Amino acid sequence: MRIGFVGLGAMGVPMASALVTYGFQITVFDILDERVQSLVKFGASASGSPGEAAENTDVLMLMVANADQAEEALFGVGGVAESMNPGSSLVVMSTIGPEAVRWVARRMQDYGVEVLDAPVSGGTARAERGDLLIMAGGERSLFDSLAELLEAMGSSVVYCGESVGDGQSVKLVNQLLCGVHIAAAGEALAYASSLGLDPRFVFETIKHGAANSFMLEDRGERMLDGEFTPAKSALDIFVKDLNLVLEAAGSESSLLPVASAAQQTFEKGSSIGLGAEDDSGVVRVYGHGLTSSEGGA
Amino acid sequence: MRIGFVGLGAMGVPMASALVTYGFQITVFDILDERVQSLVKFGASASGSPGEAAENTDVLMLMVANADQAEEALFGVGGVAESMNPGSSLVVMSTIGPEAVRWVARRMQDYGVEVLDAPVSGGTARAERGDLLIMAGGERSLFDSLAELLEAMGSSVVYCGESVGDGQSVKLVNQLLCGVHIAAAGEALAYASSLGLDPRFVFETIKHGAANSFMLEDRGERMLDGEFTPAKSALDIFVKDLNLVLEAAGSESSLLPVASAAQQTFEKGSSIGLGAEDDSGVVRVYGHGLTSSEGGA
Repeated sequence: MRIGFVGLGAMGVPMASALVTYGFQITVFDILDERVQSLVKFGASASGSPGEAAENTDVLMLMVANADQAEEALFGVGGVAESMNPGSSLVVMSTIGPEAVRWVARRMQDYGVEVLDAPVSGGTARAERGDLLIMAGGERSLFDSLAELLEAMGSSVVYCGESVGDGQSVKLVNQLLCGVHIAAAGEALAYASSLGLDPRFVFETIKHGAANSFMLEDRGERMLDGEFTPAKSALDIFVKDLNLVLEAAGSESSLLPVASAAQQTFEKGSSIGLGAEDDSGVVRVYGHGLTSSEGGA
Repeated sequence: MRIGFVGLGAMGVPMASALVTYGFQITVFDILDERVQSLVKFGASASGSPGEAAENTDVLMLMVANADQAEEALFGVGGVAESMNPGSSLVVMSTIGPEAVRWVARRMQDYGVEVLDAPVSGGTARAERGDLLIMAGGERSLFDSLAELLEAMGSSVVYCGESVGDGQSVKLVNQLLCGVHIAAAGEALAYASSLGLDPRFVFETIKHGAANSFMLEDRGERMLDGEFTPAKSALDIFVKDLNLVLEAAGSESSLLPVASAAQQTFEKGSSIGLGAEDDSGVVRVYGHGLTSSEGGA
């Protein structure tokens, strides 16, 4: 199986290198050549455009940052669509929402290319261990034929439904919770500070009880340390993903009051210049420096 | 040490019976005599008023449902304050917020009674195992003298600060997170349903990853089962506690966008008649029946 891989961001690099390690032959493209070269060192082949990465491949994996980049990489000049052979497959691993991936699938039909949507969750560290959660939607037979490939990158590869977009939908539910939990962690720690409490003491007191969340433990630690650069996961990703959550709800977005509040909080963070920093920096939107007597910022 | 205990609700009964089991001599009062009798069976003494429960005691524990009940039990006719001996102690275990417990402490000074605030977290099941988290605020020497008593009820007894109200403040941070996480769980599962997904499948797929929270696992299960009565923890408790969270923030409550959204969601639940049901019933505010092909409602 010959594989093309387009989009070597913070997640794409470890995902593509997991494929190389697993023994797959892969041709990579990114808009930044240094990223391409970092994969060539592992044994991948370089290419000069998305279309070149897609030539003569059986499967093209797309891991660009957002829907605009996906459209450009697929259908722009030197794009993927015109290079792909009829009967080959496109795997959309970017989080672009169910509507966008369905639109991609419809357009790719004209080229005889089947689409599987397969967004991921887990972050860079888990990507490096091949330990991602991959949520796939599309024809069952296509999923089965690609399972080995997906399992090279993910420890949990879940078939979410036979509609392209079902993987994206599950990912959006995941992101709704993750985004709300990060914003809530920041809100709670800043609130503790505003009440005259030591936020690290409060964090240690309540984090193992009913108030626990994965994000409270993980991002709470970073908030208290006050280290927001380099970003492990950029704040702007949650601006994008919570917008996708609201968009996918359409006219029912009024039924997402908590997610809407979290989305506005991340958007505020982005508007004051925190977009490229770690998403835990959302705590700074709340305006209180977290003062802690036991270390921390 | 002779102990009075006032307020035998869902949490008060197991807390008082833990004290009896531990060997403390305790006199109990509740507005419902059947609750008093349930404790007499364990070996507690009955009393006919808060004041009678407080007579000749060294420590009076208060575990009523809210600030209004606390004021009535302490300072109303037949109340605690006039019966207590100077030099005795009052432990406020109800969640009534830092302002209210400070007001209580100031008034009790006139009676020569010291106050410790010590709200609890953990729910009925953990109360029955003596496994509560107890967050205490007040004079260190008072806390030390009462530690054995608190440890009979809680597996984690944490000294939060020397100001009466510091325990309440830590509890409010805890409730902010718990309330947001419950509302977010309901919002996410209803959202999954609205996207055409099976909410139980989504729950099982994402609950062990980055989207995890204690409340997602615990209340999510109840939401999917659709069993909201009898209430393990009533929805109205979160209406009260999230209101306390916002009140304690005062003019800075605008800095609690996510908690505010959760508070409005619980308030909406209460307004449509769900207040006495389980707090997991907040999922019904979102208007979607959770449809699940693998069991559930």
